[in-house]
Amino acid sequence: MVETENMADSSHNVEDEVGRVVEQAKELHDSAASLISRTASDEQSLCQRALSLDSSIRRLRSLLDSLLSKKLLDPKIADKLEDDLQRARCLMVDGEVASFLPRKAQGKFLQMFLGPINVRASRKDVQLKVKEEYNSYRDRTALLFLLFPSLLLVLRGWVWDGCLPAFPVQLYQAWLLFLYTGLALRENILRVNGSDIRPWWIYHHYCAMIMALVSLTWEIKGQPNCAQKQRGVQLFLQWAMMQGVAMLLQNRYQRQRLYTRIALGKAKRMDVVWGETAGVDGQLWILCPLLFILQGFEAYVGLLLLKTALVGVVPEWQVLFCGFLLVLMAVGNFLNTVQTLMAKSRFKAKMKRSKSKQELAPTRS
Amino acid sequence: MVETENMADSSHNVEDEVGRVVEQAKELHDSAASLISRTASDEQSLCQRALSLDSSIRRLRSLLDSLLSKKLLDPKIADKLEDDLQRARCLMVDGEVASFLPRKAQGKFLQMFLGPINVRASRKDVQLKVKEEYNSYRDRTALLFLLFPSLLLVLRGWVWDGCLPAFPVQLYQAWLLFLYTGLALRENILRVNGSDIRPWWIYHHYCAMIMALVSLTWEIKGQPNCAQKQRGVQLFLQWAMMQGVAMLLQNRYQRQRLYTRIALGKAKRMDVVWGETAGVDGQLWILCPLLFILQGFEAYVGLLLLKTALVGVVPEWQVLFCGFLLVLMAVGNFLNTVQTLMAKSRFKAKMKRSKSKQELAPTRS
Repeated sequence: MVETENMADSSHNVEDEVGRVVEQAKELHDSAASLISRTASDEQSLCQRALSLDSSIRRLRSLLDSLLSKKLLDPKIADKLEDDLQRARCLMVDGEVASFLPRKAQGKFLQMFLGPINVRASRKDVQLKVKEEYNSYRDRTALLFLLFPSLLLVLRGWVWDGCLPAFPVQLYQAWLLFLYTGLALRENILRVNGSDIRPWWIYHHYCAMIMALVSLTWEIKGQPNCAQKQRGVQLFLQWAMMQGVAMLLQNRYQRQRLYTRIALGKAKRMDVVWGETAGVDGQLWILCPLLFILQGFEAYVGLLLLKTALVGVVPEWQVLFCGFLLVLMAVGNFLNTVQTLMAKSRFKAKMKRSKSKQELAPTRS
Repeated sequence: MVETENMADSSHNVEDEVGRVVEQAKELHDSAASLISRTASDEQSLCQRALSLDSSIRRLRSLLDSLLSKKLLDPKIADKLEDDLQRARCLMVDGEVASFLPRKAQGKFLQMFLGPINVRASRKDVQLKVKEEYNSYRDRTALLFLLFPSLLLVLRGWVWDGCLPAFPVQLYQAWLLFLYTGLALRENILRVNGSDIRPWWIYHHYCAMIMALVSLTWEIKGQPNCAQKQRGVQLFLQWAMMQGVAMLLQNRYQRQRLYTRIALGKAKRMDVVWGETAGVDGQLWILCPLLFILQGFEAYVGLLLLKTALVGVVPEWQVLFCGFLLVLMAVGNFLNTVQTLMAKSRFKAKMKRSKSKQELAPTRS
């Protein structure tokens, strides 16, 4: 009798509690659903406002230009207004509004590896963290890029008696494949997050991925006559060492330039490589010749491989293919570097012109 | 004089407009910032509520168990209450609330390839799209998995005179590397999005990635005595064909099972492979023996490779390594399949027990 009562008691209590929990779960579900839909509509309306503001800015810019060309506007005032518009645009593109602007399409490469998942960070601080991490990844990588081939070449001379064994070289090639895949994925992610990295540098990494893959299937030939047979590998390693030095310098230059640009309020912080604004011109005098030498050497290694493949006794398709890719990459790199430098000098000329205008303006008005 | 007036007019107008635009940009920035911080605090509070509800559900579950064991609760009522709690949990874990629950750590693999970007979809519909796309990716892949090696084997017999040329095999191996990398990335992303895929199946794909990479460096030997030298490749291709058939069957089984489970309200929709609930038992009778045969064949190919490497004239490390990996994968697959089947039968026994309890219950009360 007592037991039955106890049973009824505890079952009532626990039934009430379970009922409350179920109720709470339903409430929670409803609040989550309403929060999601409310946030979505808020985001939608912010996006609309941002788009209309963006078109206003564009319209006013072209208006300023046309007024200036018709001499209906004092150039001093026009410059000041253009600055104002630029600041408004920066506030929008670099600030919190950016996460509500419509996103760029993610592209085939990310789709292929990751499927349809969204890799755009919604918060600006996360986007900047991604950018920072990309920079530090490049730094770490550049060191390895320098150390790995140096080590191979040193060991070749001291330990391996002038003849590279296959395994360490293949390990290095596998590492290159992993590295370039990672870089290509990260750069695509940066692009989705608003960086305006030049497409060529991403294509360049696709080429490098393919080359690493192909070089893995390429048999490392040993004795007899190792020095002649491994001439291609040796040249490639020397080029990779130079590439490492260039990467380190480039990283340093780009990071400084980025910070300068952020400080000047001229750039979105997601820009990666080779923008058009200047900042740290001094280092460019070291970097540019080095880049051109590197590209020349890349083309030279490529042509040498092509020659080996076409003249050699055993025409391996891998040698031909790698040679072709190296030449292609060298030409592409060269063209893109030149284009960047031209854009840079155009920008500088414009800056100078507007500066001299500003200096002239007071006497005219 | 007129020109100066015009100039003053238009400059006033345009100055006003620019001022308005700058004002609008500031307002937009402020609303974006406040929307972001408001959403963040709303999400925070929802997350708190969800966590406390989750702990309530856990507490009530153990309370029910202890009441049952002390016979202080009618088993029929206990079953009903347990169902209620399960439904509450499903509503939370499978519904909109899920996106506010604290996320799982992303793991080293994703970090290595993608950096610190967040790959968790915030909306349930996107998560399901990711899952669906993963399934259809597996389907497409399984077909290629079947076709690619079949084609190679057919061409070997009909066109290539019993001797596989290196290039198509290497192309196939490169495809395998790409495929397994994609699968491993996608499965890691699914995990972050709440799927409870068994870790082994991801490790299995890491092993397969490494094997594809190693097999790329493995020279395909031709004449003389091709049949003997290419015995390993041939066995591997036959195994891959069987694997393709098994994948097709597995995909069909898993998708049906998933839909059954969703219909039964028993599963989170993000579950991938080998859960504990039943659904379509019929197909398991075809699938299971096939899986065991496949695993046996995998181990056999592995052992054969080991034997070739250890007895053969030229002991290539790649052959040894691939053999070892195949045996490892076969053993791991076998253990995990057995564990899954055991979990399945435990679950069934439990279901039967609770069913018989329910049938007994009316006569007792």
